[in-house]
This record gives sequence, structure tokens and C-alpha cells, in this order.
Amino acid sequence: MAQPTLAVVGADRPVGTVMRELLSSRRNVWGEVRLVSLDPAAGVSLPCRGVDVPVSPVAPEIFDGVDVAIFDVPEPAAEYWAPVAVERGVTVVDGSAAFRMAPDVPLVVPEVNRQAVRRRPRGIVSGANCTTTSMLMAVAPLHHEYGLRELTLASYQAVSGAGQVGVDVLHDQISKLAGDRTLGSRPGDVRQAVGDDLGPFRAPMALNVVPWIGDLTDGGWSSEEREMRNESRKILGLPDLKVSATCVRVPVVTGHSIAVHAVFGAELSADEARKVLRNAPGVILVDDPEADEFPMPVDAVGTDPSWVGRIRRAMDDPRALDFFVTGDNMRKGSALNTVQIAELVAMESERR
Amino acid sequence: MAQPTLAVVGADRPVGTVMRELLSSRRNVWGEVRLVSLDPAAGVSLPCRGVDVPVSPVAPEIFDGVDVAIFDVPEPAAEYWAPVAVERGVTVVDGSAAFRMAPDVPLVVPEVNRQAVRRRPRGIVSGANCTTTSMLMAVAPLHHEYGLRELTLASYQAVSGAGQVGVDVLHDQISKLAGDRTLGSRPGDVRQAVGDDLGPFRAPMALNVVPWIGDLTDGGWSSEEREMRNESRKILGLPDLKVSATCVRVPVVTGHSIAVHAVFGAELSADEARKVLRNAPGVILVDDPEADEFPMPVDAVGTDPSWVGRIRRAMDDPRALDFFVTGDNMRKGSALNTVQIAELVAMESERR
Repeated sequence: MAQPTLAVVGADRPVGTVMRELLSSRRNVWGEVRLVSLDPAAGVSLPCRGVDVPVSPVAPEIFDGVDVAIFDVPEPAAEYWAPVAVERGVTVVDGSAAFRMAPDVPLVVPEVNRQAVRRRPRGIVSGANCTTTSMLMAVAPLHHEYGLRELTLASYQAVSGAGQVGVDVLHDQISKLAGDRTLGSRPGDVRQAVGDDLGPFRAPMALNVVPWIGDLTDGGWSSEEREMRNESRKILGLPDLKVSATCVRVPVVTGHSIAVHAVFGAELSADEARKVLRNAPGVILVDDPEADEFPMPVDAVGTDPSWVGRIRRAMDDPRALDFFVTGDNMRKGSALNTVQIAELVAMESERR
Repeated sequence: MAQPTLAVVGADRPVGTVMRELLSSRRNVWGEVRLVSLDPAAGVSLPCRGVDVPVSPVAPEIFDGVDVAIFDVPEPAAEYWAPVAVERGVTVVDGSAAFRMAPDVPLVVPEVNRQAVRRRPRGIVSGANCTTTSMLMAVAPLHHEYGLRELTLASYQAVSGAGQVGVDVLHDQISKLAGDRTLGSRPGDVRQAVGDDLGPFRAPMALNVVPWIGDLTDGGWSSEEREMRNESRKILGLPDLKVSATCVRVPVVTGHSIAVHAVFGAELSADEARKVLRNAPGVILVDDPEADEFPMPVDAVGTDPSWVGRIRRAMDDPRALDFFVTGDNMRKGSALNTVQIAELVAMESERR
């Protein structure tokens, strides 16, 4: 079979930019790669695999002859254009939340549930929430050994999760604060210095943490917190898993971190967990506090794996483990995971 | 009885500065207030209660005639000078970790266990860890109604917890980063921009989160995490309470936050919890996400209470509650709690 044709929908967006970088650096499984934009005025060329590729505005006929399309666009655009592409014979891999919880759409993290990609009655495969993906990279291999029962999660999420506008707002706020060494110690001083431009956030991001990401859902849960629970259950195939998450935005540009408290069905030691994680695909173990080795955004940014460390057996429960995970939300959290799923689909078609 | 004499040991330090502010603004229960410094060259005057008070270098005779001494000094200095003061008839209220876990020293958060202040065989009363104090302000009233069984905690701790040098380092790093809007997206760029001056921290604090506070103890736990467990157990009088904490430093100047997952012995709703917390002393309820009301450092800084919000009943356990707490680590976290304990001691002596 000839090498399949790929369309990158949203190629001019931040995650699309990382997708193009990944396509340029990974083992090449694609024949033609088409770059597609939601912007009707698109028409520039963007670099991909070492050459400049023209960017086409999205339209039904752009999908003719495409085998796989990877989507990084807002939910409403995904909801509209994914079925259009499927109609033209394309398998869509969507990074948005549009289809994640649909029962006839598999939700995939390749290292965790690659087999799920095969059954896709709607022609759509979804990638998971960026925080969930990085966290499950560490949790899933432990689950397979010890049987996961319960997750309690608290996140430290970067502003790039809110798009380029989130990054710009944090940098703007930092510029406004810089130089005044008294800020952050008196009532209201940070709000006053930052001013009214909060961008996509509900409060200042510089010198602050904001315990809110997404929209309000029942019971006071944010949509982000609800996604972490529901998507973890679906990907792990554990419909009764107990999950509580608190999602918090922090003044970091890229790199989502998660403090994980995981309760298993069997006892386990920190050393046993380290052994499992040392051999887990897509995981890098950084767990030597005396040598200042623990997962952090400054180190994880721009890298593919989930960084895992601070592994401790709970002091009061031999079946529970505490640890800390950091992953690049632009890579494994979104672009990388989507590209990996597309490669899986391509390889699997080849095998048939 | 004449108004008692107070000594403020460490009056020239950051927490001591807040102590002097509090003494100037709270109902006055003190006669003479003596300001004491560890610095042998001390001799300047510092403002307290509207007048400039001379600062004396610490010496045994400085404690003669003192009724209560509040200490904000490093542990070794507390270990040395507290017994010297007690020897001279002083009741010492110590904010450091030096005596917190000693069985013959009460560990007190006045709103939680004020009665514990009465039994102090060594003449010393300890204030708790700043993160523990803010968190327990919310947890204790719920415990009294529903019977606490288990706490899973993740903290978002400000750099002022590491002293003025921590604040200075964060401001320095922000100045170095400001203006370069590309930073935080590429491997190593933040480490390079920040340079080698990490101050008291193990890694850059600007545009980063650092999952390490304190020293290494058994099992990979940091001393801060171990303190949160052991001090919670002692203050609540629950020696078997299950506690897991992950303590993380974030780029915030002042205001420690904690994501709390609390399991109780009885079922409870978010509304019932709100009702309890609305009437709890030293707690302010900020729980309306649609109006952008949730606890945050930018709002809690410079205020006395613990700000509590994001209250949700766990989706998968009717006996568990998730919520978020922010408190000013310089006030209720340390200076305010110490001053309150000293006032308790003074009132109680008066009553005798």
C-alpha cells in the first residue's frame, strides 16, 4: 500500500505548530501531508518535514483522498468538520473534548489502551484531556500491576492550556509586575498592578494560583475536573473508579503537573512502583530529592514523556501511593498524543 | 492584676514585623512590650503600637519581668533561648518547629484547640506549621460535625514561607524573565534565563512549580509533608488520622493554598459544609465560581482569616468533601496565630 495521506486541521494554531514539528522529527509514515486552517484567508505556507507547505482553508473537498485527519480546533469546529471529513472516507483523530465521552468514539492514550483504536464505528478517535493524559501515563502501568481503586488528584496547570492568548497574558502581567519588589505582600497590590486585562482567566495569573479551569457543572465541579474523572474511567476501562480532582491554574507557561494519591487493591512499596515505572513506555523516572531530582515544568517542557517522581508509599495505607507527575501539555498532552494515534491508525490499516 | 509584659523575640524579622503590626491593631492586652533581636548589634528602634520601641539584643536578663514571650526565630535559636526564658519565669509561645511534636508542649491553633494551652508543663506553647494552620481552620469545624477519618492534601505554597530571601529571589527571577515573551516554551530556557542564583530553593521559582519543601525524611517524605500529617493529628487529637500530603512551592509571594480531600465518618452535602463553615471562627467563605469567587492568594494576602471555597461533595463518596483553602502564611500561618496564643495565655493568667 502507498503511504497514507494526512491532513492537519488547525495547522496554524499552537498545537498544530507542535504537530508539524513532530511530523518533521518522527519516523515518517505519511505520504502527502496537507495543512488546513479554519481561517478562510489562510494561504500562507508553513514549514513541515523540512519544506514549506501551503495552508488551505478548510472545505469539504480538502478531505478528498485523505486517509487520516488530525484535528486541533475548538469544539464547535470539530463537531462540524469531523463528520464532513468522515463522510469523505477519512478517519478523524480529534484532540478536542467534542467526542471524548461519546460511547461510539474510542478515547485513546496509545501507551495505555492502543487496542481501543480498532473499534471506531463513527470513524472518529478522540485524544484525552491534556492533564488526564500525562497523569494516566504513570497511573496505568501501576494499575495493571496492582489494580487501581481510587484517585485523588490536584493539578498545577500551565497557561498555554488556555491557548496562545493565555501565554501572552501571563507574559504581559509579568512585565507589569517586574521591578516592583514589594508586590505580592499587601492586600490588592497584584490585582492593581496587573489591571483589568485577565485574558481567558478569571483572575490575575502572575503571582497567583486560580482554582478554576473550564465551565461550571453540577455540584460545583469544573468541566476540567469532571473530564479528569470521566476520561480516566473510560480510558482505563474502570467505570466505577473513584476519582476526585481539583484543577488549578498556576503561573507556568508550559507543563501541567499533578499531585496524585492513588489507592490500589494490593499492597505495594515505593521501590516496586519505581521498578514498574522505570519500564513503562513514555515515562521518565526522576525521583532523587537529595539530588534535586523531581518532576518540574522547567525540565519537562519540550519533551515527550511524562516525568514521574516524589514516589512515596502512603504513611497510613500500605495500598496507597503518592507521587508527582509533570508533562508538556502541548506535546503528550495534545499534539504528540494525537499524532501517535494517527500513526496507530495508519499502521493498523497497513496491516489489514 | 497589671497588664502583662510581652517580649517579641525576632521582632526585626519578617514575621516579627507582622507581629508588631498585629500588636498595633488588635485589642491591647499588654502593658510593656519589649522588642528583642538575635542580632547582637541590634539597637535601632522599630515601630510598635504607634511609638518607636528600642530593640535589645537577646540576653538572659532581657526576660526578667516578662510574662509572655513570642518567638519567631530559627529552630536552633528557639531551642537555646526558650528554656532560658522559661527559667526566668516566662511563658514562651514559639512559632518554630523546635517543640511542636514534644509530648509535653501543647500545639495550638486557638480556634481549634484553645483548651490545650492550659497544660504546658515545660512553660512552652507551640504554634503549628503555617500550611497546617490555614488548612485546619476549615477542616476542624467540619471534623466536629462529621468526624474526620482521612485527609489527602496538595499544597500551593508561597515563597515568603522561605523568608525574605525567598521573596527577593522570586522578584529577581521575574525581573530577569520579564520582556522575553518566548520564555517557558522551550527546553531549558527558564533555567538559562534565571541563572544559578536559586536562593533557598532547589530550582527556579519563576514560571515553575517545585514539588519539594524542607528536608528529606524516611520513605521519601519531605519534612513539610510529614509535619502536615503529624501536626494535624496532634492538634485535632486524632492519633490515627490517615493523612497524605504533597507540598509544592509555587511562584506566589504570600498566601499558601491547599487542595483538600477530606473523608468523614458521616455523609454530608456541600450545602451542609457551607453552613458549618459560614459560622466557623476565622473562616471566610468564598464559594461562587460563576461570580469568580474562590480562594486565591491575590485576595487572601494581608488578611487574617482562612479563605475557603470550591466546596464539592465527592462524586463517588457521599462521605467525602473536596475544597480549596488559602491563608496568609505570614498572618494566621504564623504571626497572628502566635499573637493569639499569647493573648490566650495572658487572659487565662488573669482569670486565675
